[in-house]
Amino acid sequence: MTYCVAMAVNDGLVFLSDTRTNAGVDHISTARKMSVFEQPGERMLVLLGAGNLSITQAVLHELSEPADASEPTLWSVPTMADAARVVGSAVRRVHEREAEAMQKFGVDFNCSFILGGQIAGNRMRLFMIYAAGNFIEASAVNPYFQIGEAKYGKPIIDRVLTPSTPLDEAAKSALISMDSTLRSNLSVGLPLDLLVYEKDALRVTRFVSIDRDNAYFDMLHRTWGERLRQVFAEIPDPDWQRSLDAPSPQSERALVLYRAPVGADGVEHEQDVSPAQILAQADKGKAQRR
Amino acid sequence: MTYCVAMAVNDGLVFLSDTRTNAGVDHISTARKMSVFEQPGERMLVLLGAGNLSITQAVLHELSEPADASEPTLWSVPTMADAARVVGSAVRRVHEREAEAMQKFGVDFNCSFILGGQIAGNRMRLFMIYAAGNFIEASAVNPYFQIGEAKYGKPIIDRVLTPSTPLDEAAKSALISMDSTLRSNLSVGLPLDLLVYEKDALRVTRFVSIDRDNAYFDMLHRTWGERLRQVFAEIPDPDWQRSLDAPSPQSERALVLYRAPVGADGVEHEQDVSPAQILAQADKGKAQRR
Repeated sequence: MTYCVAMAVNDGLVFLSDTRTNAGVDHISTARKMSVFEQPGERMLVLLGAGNLSITQAVLHELSEPADASEPTLWSVPTMADAARVVGSAVRRVHEREAEAMQKFGVDFNCSFILGGQIAGNRMRLFMIYAAGNFIEASAVNPYFQIGEAKYGKPIIDRVLTPSTPLDEAAKSALISMDSTLRSNLSVGLPLDLLVYEKDALRVTRFVSIDRDNAYFDMLHRTWGERLRQVFAEIPDPDWQRSLDAPSPQSERALVLYRAPVGADGVEHEQDVSPAQILAQADKGKAQRR
Repeated sequence: MTYCVAMAVNDGLVFLSDTRTNAGVDHISTARKMSVFEQPGERMLVLLGAGNLSITQAVLHELSEPADASEPTLWSVPTMADAARVVGSAVRRVHEREAEAMQKFGVDFNCSFILGGQIAGNRMRLFMIYAAGNFIEASAVNPYFQIGEAKYGKPIIDRVLTPSTPLDEAAKSALISMDSTLRSNLSVGLPLDLLVYEKDALRVTRFVSIDRDNAYFDMLHRTWGERLRQVFAEIPDPDWQRSLDAPSPQSERALVLYRAPVGADGVEHEQDVSPAQILAQADKGKAQRR
């Protein structure tokens, strides 16, 4: 599996990817999922890929060596939307060539891409491209995309990221999101590739490969875990005497399926019973025991 | 979709389920996923179900009205492991009856269950039962099970839950896990059913249906979000001058696929370039611009 995330904030773009690939848990290897297409001062594009590695690599080959020299390429297109179309077309060509043969072996045509960057004279843009070659663009209400194993790391990004988040803070949220994912899913692994693009730079200025011995990521990993546990400990436990089981206006509608023991007729009678009724019965039971 | 989680700690068991069901996002409804089988003083069993609602309900019907009166039931079995077998058998009977017809409509036989509780004279136990009727048991190294939309809410539980976690603290972690899931997935929704079982009580003593107006859950939701953002803000941003891009012993091996512009021969030359090399090239670009 893979986890890649890219963010578009006002000050720039953040790209983060892991490097684990696996064909079964007994066949784990390392592959880069981030490709940088840079013509310094003119364009800076980053492509992240997830899915079947043979497909994402075939798409990269298509992009590097287009069969037809008249085709537009990531180096020649005038806009980022055109660049997304170029990637979409490459995905469709690979699908045409490979999908049927793979289908015979029961292998799905599974791939997705994130493309972001800037071309001189245009604004920064960020796209997600699907296996069918169609794509969507990030916006102020949805300033990030994830591909691969996205769920573990989504809640923290949803809580902190907005378009006005400073660039390095966005990078920090991406790394925390990755840390949660690494913790919960073996098929996502170090090292990480982190590229932070500063708006209008039109070149790569901040790029790092993060391994187990990276001091910042190690600090982030330890501090985040410790502080989370601390915040968790500081929040009061449920108080069953007061707030939790106070009858709410809706609690009469909030029925649980409570199954009573089999009756004298040998048939269990299913009842809709409210929490208050269950607890009343429990109290009765307790009183009887005393 | 659904999210259910159950935990087995030394002091008792925690069961939490949402109540949203959907057949497409335009067809959202409410159903209970928690069933309580209680014979006060003798046994207290809780069953959580996720998957296709018609299947999980059919399994409940099987459990309530077994076709063969000689079959063991959840009311008659002497141990929790036997109870898990009873649920597994019910799942298999429903599969035998329903799966083929559903298959014709392209509907998978999709269901999973968590069963936990205690029978007098035995210890508390917690099981997860699969669609094939087989099951596994929770243990000290894996003291919880999730079914349904499990991923969003997994990282926080992994960070705080151990068998020695106090019962109410375990319930708190389940509610935070649910809060993260509610935030990220529309197909999981309020109200929630929370049942906390105190070891050896052999009856329901703490049970509540939590809706939007529950004061504790509202406090938890707000406090957790605010404090997470605060912790996030307190952790230093990456410092590109110092820790992050300091060359690590592994950085030479950590290559990224860097794609150079098309050469004079019209062919792009793919290069493996280290982060340090990319940054050196970027510095050169900057120097040239000055």
